[in-house]
Amino acid sequence: MTERQVATRRALYPRFSSISTRWGDNDSYGHVNNVVYYSFFDTAVNQHLIECGVLDIANSASIGLVLENQCRYFTLLGFPDRIDVGMRVTHLGNSSVRYEIALFRNEADLASAVGKFVHVYVDRATNQPVPIPPAVRSVLEPLMQAEAAA
Amino acid sequence: MTERQVATRRALYPRFSSISTRWGDNDSYGHVNNVVYYSFFDTAVNQHLIECGVLDIANSASIGLVLENQCRYFTLLGFPDRIDVGMRVTHLGNSSVRYEIALFRNEADLASAVGKFVHVYVDRATNQPVPIPPAVRSVLEPLMQAEAAA
Amino acid sequence: MTERQVATRRALYPRFSSISTRWGDNDSYGHVNNVVYYSFFDTAVNQHLIECGVLDIANSASIGLVLENQCRYFTLLGFPDRIDVGMRVTHLGNSSVRYEIALFRNEADLASAVGKFVHVYVDRATNQPVPIPPAVRSVLEPLMQAEAAA
Amino acid sequence: MTERQVATRRALYPRFSSISTRWGDNDSYGHVNNVVYYSFFDTAVNQHLIECGVLDIANSASIGLVLENQCRYFTLLGFPDRIDVGMRVTHLGNSSVRYEIALFRNEADLASAVGKFVHVYVDRATNQPVPIPPAVRSVLEPLMQAEAAA
Repeated sequence: MTERQVATRRALYPRFSSISTRWGDNDSYGHVNNVVYYSFFDTAVNQHLIECGVLDIANSASIGLVLENQCRYFTLLGFPDRIDVGMRVTHLGNSSVRYEIALFRNEADLASAVGKFVHVYVDRATNQPVPIPPAVRSVLEPLMQAEAAA
Repeated sequence: MTERQVATRRALYPRFSSISTRWGDNDSYGHVNNVVYYSFFDTAVNQHLIECGVLDIANSASIGLVLENQCRYFTLLGFPDRIDVGMRVTHLGNSSVRYEIALFRNEADLASAVGKFVHVYVDRATNQPVPIPPAVRSVLEPLMQAEAAA
Repeated sequence: MTERQVATRRALYPRFSSISTRWGDNDSYGHVNNVVYYSFFDTAVNQHLIECGVLDIANSASIGLVLENQCRYFTLLGFPDRIDVGMRVTHLGNSSVRYEIALFRNEADLASAVGKFVHVYVDRATNQPVPIPPAVRSVLEPLMQAEAAA
Repeated sequence: MTERQVATRRALYPRFSSISTRWGDNDSYGHVNNVVYYSFFDTAVNQHLIECGVLDIANSASIGLVLENQCRYFTLLGFPDRIDVGMRVTHLGNSSVRYEIALFRNEADLASAVGKFVHVYVDRATNQPVPIPPAVRSVLEPLMQAEAAA
């Protein structure tokens, strides 16, 4: 099996959310623009935190800023598609958390793309790193899984 | 009752689709940016046409170009919200169709915003207006309703 | 002369800013998506206010929310293009200001699109309408011009 | 000197283009959303190819699809800012090209973010990899530079 076949099945991801593509997500080549994939990443991560009650966009004293992210693209997405966004946590440090995120097109079991996404928690006023708040940590720990072999 | 109360209830709209907001839809003021509302409009219209089998983005010989659109904003939308997009046709001409589109936030019965959206059909190669294709017309006629009094 | 020829020449607009299109602005039809035109509108308006020193995004006590906007599309824009955004004020009320905005593609003297854009000033904390702040009014008055006949 | 100081000065990049931020690029935290950085990457790369006359979006027989990209974020960007996008080629293979792209905010000499971006050339009709067209290769070779030490 190839790396893609090993690393990107739905069963690897403990948490899913769904996002529908939009007309304007397609670019001149008639497929979802690579840029849009990253909007699926931060939408899924922040939606999880909000739904778990540990992020209040307007008021949380510490917030996650993106330190680094990346994406590998295997197959194309389009409009209209439903994208199931699988999410797991591959590293949980003192101030930062690393997510692995996979995008599944409609009923597909193999991911169309897989990304990594690192949030560092900072004090909202000073932008200085702070420990991940305990409430946030408690909703991330259940998503912890060993990262797929590279 | 105010104009908004008369004109913008869910019951006025024969066709709905749902769109979820994304993290980046919110702007610096913490609410969905006005620009994004228009992406809900063309997403809903084109999705309806595609699901009805009368638009093939890559191959249809005649396509709808936006001639004019507008939006009135009543209340704010945010992330994460589910937006139910109500759609009806208020004018069906030879080459052009006018839609009225209303955005309902989660369970709300009154619209957060109401827009108008005019597509003119053109030949894909020449950009010259053509009659609305019969297949397109047949899926738009059931959405025809008198426009709400201004 | 047609309406478009009368109403949309560069000479009608006292203030210009320039915006370059981006790869992802183009949609499946290979032209700038209608949604993106509205991003040119609020970018030009807010940039003018910031450059004049009368809007501090993070701290201004009263801010402009979009009450209504609209756009008529005459000719297509694409990537890569430089868009010169012409702006004038056609109505300055107690709490609201109406802009007319025209988009000129590269060297063109006739606009590719013309929009209207209404900001209502609200208290940032309560979202209730407030008078346009005097400093804002002072930078809008020089942009006042009679609206083109419809 | 830190990695950032070594690897991200303007002098390392042989080619620049400028992009202005837009109102809606800022997200709820009041800074340019991470997603938007990737739009600067593909805008700069494709604009270079178009300006050099080696990419015709609508007609080129082979096109570059994004295989992989990534970004490390050092300091925040905002609206309104002018972003100078520095670009160099760090690997030029048979079918694929790897770019390193750095974003400089206004007059800054140190990059706010550095990304990598891999295009694979494919036949437009079949999506199968093809050799980079000679004309494309000829405009990429002058941008070749050794990648900064990691």
